[in-house]
Amino acid sequence: MRYAVLDGGKRLRPLLVLGAAEAVRGNMDAALRAACAVELIHAYSLVHDDMPCMDNDVLRRGKPTVHVAFGEATALLAGDALQALAFEFLAPEDAGIPERTQAALCRLLAQAAGHAGMAGGQAIDLAAVGKSLTEDELRQMHRLKTGALLQASVAMGAACGHTTALARRGLEEYGRALGLAFQVVDDILDVTADSATLGKTAGKDALHDKPTYVSLLGLERARSYARELLEQGRAALATTGLPDTQALLALAEMVVHRDN
Amino acid sequence: MRYAVLDGGKRLRPLLVLGAAEAVRGNMDAALRAACAVELIHAYSLVHDDMPCMDNDVLRRGKPTVHVAFGEATALLAGDALQALAFEFLAPEDAGIPERTQAALCRLLAQAAGHAGMAGGQAIDLAAVGKSLTEDELRQMHRLKTGALLQASVAMGAACGHTTALARRGLEEYGRALGLAFQVVDDILDVTADSATLGKTAGKDALHDKPTYVSLLGLERARSYARELLEQGRAALATTGLPDTQALLALAEMVVHRDN
Repeated sequence: MRYAVLDGGKRLRPLLVLGAAEAVRGNMDAALRAACAVELIHAYSLVHDDMPCMDNDVLRRGKPTVHVAFGEATALLAGDALQALAFEFLAPEDAGIPERTQAALCRLLAQAAGHAGMAGGQAIDLAAVGKSLTEDELRQMHRLKTGALLQASVAMGAACGHTTALARRGLEEYGRALGLAFQVVDDILDVTADSATLGKTAGKDALHDKPTYVSLLGLERARSYARELLEQGRAALATTGLPDTQALLALAEMVVHRDN
Repeated sequence: MRYAVLDGGKRLRPLLVLGAAEAVRGNMDAALRAACAVELIHAYSLVHDDMPCMDNDVLRRGKPTVHVAFGEATALLAGDALQALAFEFLAPEDAGIPERTQAALCRLLAQAAGHAGMAGGQAIDLAAVGKSLTEDELRQMHRLKTGALLQASVAMGAACGHTTALARRGLEEYGRALGLAFQVVDDILDVTADSATLGKTAGKDALHDKPTYVSLLGLERARSYARELLEQGRAALATTGLPDTQALLALAEMVVHRDN
């Protein structure tokens, strides 16, 4: 479990939780727990996704994947236990976090991780290998597979404080645009970056004949789509009326301009 | 996910939740959600446990296991999504369940399912194949692997109402004895029952050279140990001072006298 979580990784999801909590001036003890919880869910999903029956990958964050290092059975169990640990983090006893916040965080994370979120998106992805998808179908798949947890990170940060309905809508729209931009850039990097820079195997999508934004739109149009989504995210933040959105703005920039 | 959950199974864990909630005259809406949640966790653990990298089993509840019916990748994802769904059930919006109860249920379930509970026990089990364990080591392994979720079922039912410290201690002790009795009887049935009656592959433990209560104590002493644990559970219930413990008493009887 430590091997899967404790080194490497951009920590994008925890940063989104903390950025959103800062924007709403939320309870930072709750936000830190929520930040850890989303990263634990992300880490478990990578461990399981890398297993031989899924992507069968050997390299992650520049290291051998968990099942290569510890065996498949241990990888399966470590992933399972990481998911449970995420919820354990969200519902501590006597940590001074309002039970209302604890329940809201558990709800948002469970919805984002499960059948109508990340796991559901992975199942669609699995069924899509070797098929051609329309742009709408591709967007829906990614909205679940990677978008749901990114968007939940923003929503969980916001749930650590009080927000107006207007601010909540703006943050939701920001999370949606950022989640989609993340995936578009992921698809671009899979084509343009090398494995050493990525810390994971490059060129996998084409190898497995997976539909991507690059295969669908071409490289140039995928790049301009990512820039367009960045502008949508910026505009959405401006509608919230919140004063402290600098971190969220910087994270959106990072998502689009990153090279791994 | 439906295939893994919706037919077959004794529903012992949900019955324990409901029995304990009845004993403390708890909120039955909360108890029903908790009952579903523990069964979802149990079902996911069976799906993953049956996979080729774990027990590699083909029969469960009288049907082909999930990975045999749907493939390994789908079994992995279905298990993952069932775990998330359990927590989604515990933290509903606008269902009239106090947020204090929601948070307590999430805490109890996460602790019982994770590294210091079920998943941790499975990891110990994995490491123990082909080794000889002392009775203490075997008890500790089962206390986590199967005992933690059974005990949490009782604790979650109790968390749906108000309990005195005395009643809580008695219910804890009942849950501990019942969890252990369940495993002792499981080990006995693996030797004495056939696969058709069990609904799963019989004789697996000896085949995989797993340490069990039967291999450690012999069949007769294992049987008398199960009866002794039943008496401990009965005595523990009597100390609670709760009037409505008939269901919990009957469940303890069922656990020890079952034939599958």
